[in-house]
Amino acid sequence: MKSNKISMKEIARLSGVSIATVSRIINENGRYSDETRQRVMDIIDKYQYETNSIAKSLRMNRSQTIGVLVPDINNEFFSVIVQEIESFFFDLGYSTIICNTAKSAEKEKEYLKILDSKMVDGLVCISGQEEVLTDVLKRKVPIVCIDRRPKIDSNVAFIASDHYAGGFIATEELIRKGCRRILVLTKQQNLSSVNERLNGFSDAMLKHNLVLGKEQYVTIQSDHNNLDAAKQKVQQLIENKMKFDGIFATNDWLGLGALLALQENGIQVPGEVKIVGFDNDTISKYCNPPLTTINQDKAALASKACGILLEMIEGKTPKIEEHQLLPVNLVERQTT
Amino acid sequence: MKSNKISMKEIARLSGVSIATVSRIINENGRYSDETRQRVMDIIDKYQYETNSIAKSLRMNRSQTIGVLVPDINNEFFSVIVQEIESFFFDLGYSTIICNTAKSAEKEKEYLKILDSKMVDGLVCISGQEEVLTDVLKRKVPIVCIDRRPKIDSNVAFIASDHYAGGFIATEELIRKGCRRILVLTKQQNLSSVNERLNGFSDAMLKHNLVLGKEQYVTIQSDHNNLDAAKQKVQQLIENKMKFDGIFATNDWLGLGALLALQENGIQVPGEVKIVGFDNDTISKYCNPPLTTINQDKAALASKACGILLEMIEGKTPKIEEHQLLPVNLVERQTT
Repeated sequence: MKSNKISMKEIARLSGVSIATVSRIINENGRYSDETRQRVMDIIDKYQYETNSIAKSLRMNRSQTIGVLVPDINNEFFSVIVQEIESFFFDLGYSTIICNTAKSAEKEKEYLKILDSKMVDGLVCISGQEEVLTDVLKRKVPIVCIDRRPKIDSNVAFIASDHYAGGFIATEELIRKGCRRILVLTKQQNLSSVNERLNGFSDAMLKHNLVLGKEQYVTIQSDHNNLDAAKQKVQQLIENKMKFDGIFATNDWLGLGALLALQENGIQVPGEVKIVGFDNDTISKYCNPPLTTINQDKAALASKACGILLEMIEGKTPKIEEHQLLPVNLVERQTT
Repeated sequence: MKSNKISMKEIARLSGVSIATVSRIINENGRYSDETRQRVMDIIDKYQYETNSIAKSLRMNRSQTIGVLVPDINNEFFSVIVQEIESFFFDLGYSTIICNTAKSAEKEKEYLKILDSKMVDGLVCISGQEEVLTDVLKRKVPIVCIDRRPKIDSNVAFIASDHYAGGFIATEELIRKGCRRILVLTKQQNLSSVNERLNGFSDAMLKHNLVLGKEQYVTIQSDHNNLDAAKQKVQQLIENKMKFDGIFATNDWLGLGALLALQENGIQVPGEVKIVGFDNDTISKYCNPPLTTINQDKAALASKACGILLEMIEGKTPKIEEHQLLPVNLVERQTT
């Protein structure tokens, strides 16, 4: 599809001047006579050449655009945060362009390059890969990472929920309700957010002198659908006559998968097995029975991240504490 | 925040030539001596100036980027389609930038301008406003609209589910299961997709000689949360002793809201009142009881839209039938 816009080259040809002269006139930069200027402007008006905002941002080095890298736009935790970011920055005159990396390192690299080349003024990277691949960036763009610990760098800030506390609270909830043989159900991935939830789990188990062995860590493959894989895995555990009375699922979809497998086998929840999920996704509220879970404050995460990014864009050095962790809380429903 | 990239102006100063000469050399366009070229290239290498992809796309008029306008990234129907579009185009070497318009006409205009200025090669517009505001575009970009009827224009294609059939099938399902006093629960908005669902509803009622009056159209305000507003509205109907035995909800969240209100009032679903939703969102499968609904084939919608857009980008004229409507189907669960 050919653009209906006239090129600089065409303008130069039609007005009988060099491309460099057209460029100088458009950019109002350098020498040219009034007469030449008029000739060029007439051609431009005639063909409605518009210096588009790309040309402008090349000169100004500001695009009033924020880039957001998100690993899975179809995950409620991420989509809510992205919405909040968009809304925050729109009110300040910034547009937000969102890139869905589908948890692929290759895509993440590609999109970082794209956002860099589109001259975004700042980036929000939401967890996906273990490390932020900032080495693909050519400009020193301010970056705020949510849920992903970046390498120490002056232009990268970090913010996350207190995942460790979440894992600890979830496990203590199960223990308080009488569980003694507790499994943790998680995805096989090496994300700091998930690792910290697991640390919270094991510390709570140790604090209460409960047995903790390898077999209590039940993992599903990272590329599998949370719900289906969790359901299948718990089905296997039941068939293998594994004994357990509590499950801490590191996200709500895993928790729901476990719940469905237990129900299909006639095992009472919370009577025989109790479950705590993580994230407080909408599904946890409306499934049956509603899932006890750990709530992350998505709005606060987004607004903190935006505030920090804005300060960095404006050239201020934001006051970032070493651990910028937001509190989480238990939402007690009917699976515990 | 200052960019760490050296500007053309700086390069010109350091190599002792004019900015126009630097531009000619970078763009390999126009006259300059080998010696001058070497001098400028040395400075560029030294400071790692990179002609970024914006500068390139200005010359090439191709950005290998697709823009997607989506009214609500937190709505599963949209987020699934956006994911499919991203995946389709990434495999072809295109990147996708997503803009969340939050159903605001102002934002939609702004983002259309942004995507235009970022020189996207094609656009996918998912419903939000009644009309596509293509008049803000400066270039003739190929556009595919999903769920939104565009003005007739050579560069705009349209694709949607057969919403009329969906409304008809949903209503006939209620009638077949014995409902006679059927309400339709919908949002107050003028979207073609919703209007067609309502037309399907009324035609099915007429076909079966059922009474159809104004009071059977129950609407909630468009800016309200689907679930909460629907729940509140149905609560009011119950308090007002309105008689009804079936509800066709034009989306699953409205259906779930109705279900919750009925349950809180001890009204049996499906025993006393039956409900059919629309969209087959995940929530419809896992709520209690699971909701009967109309399934839209999101993957097919996305892949059709992508195929058409690609053809348009490649300068072909896609064979678009006048009504590019994809079939829907009933998913019978436990609310009917």
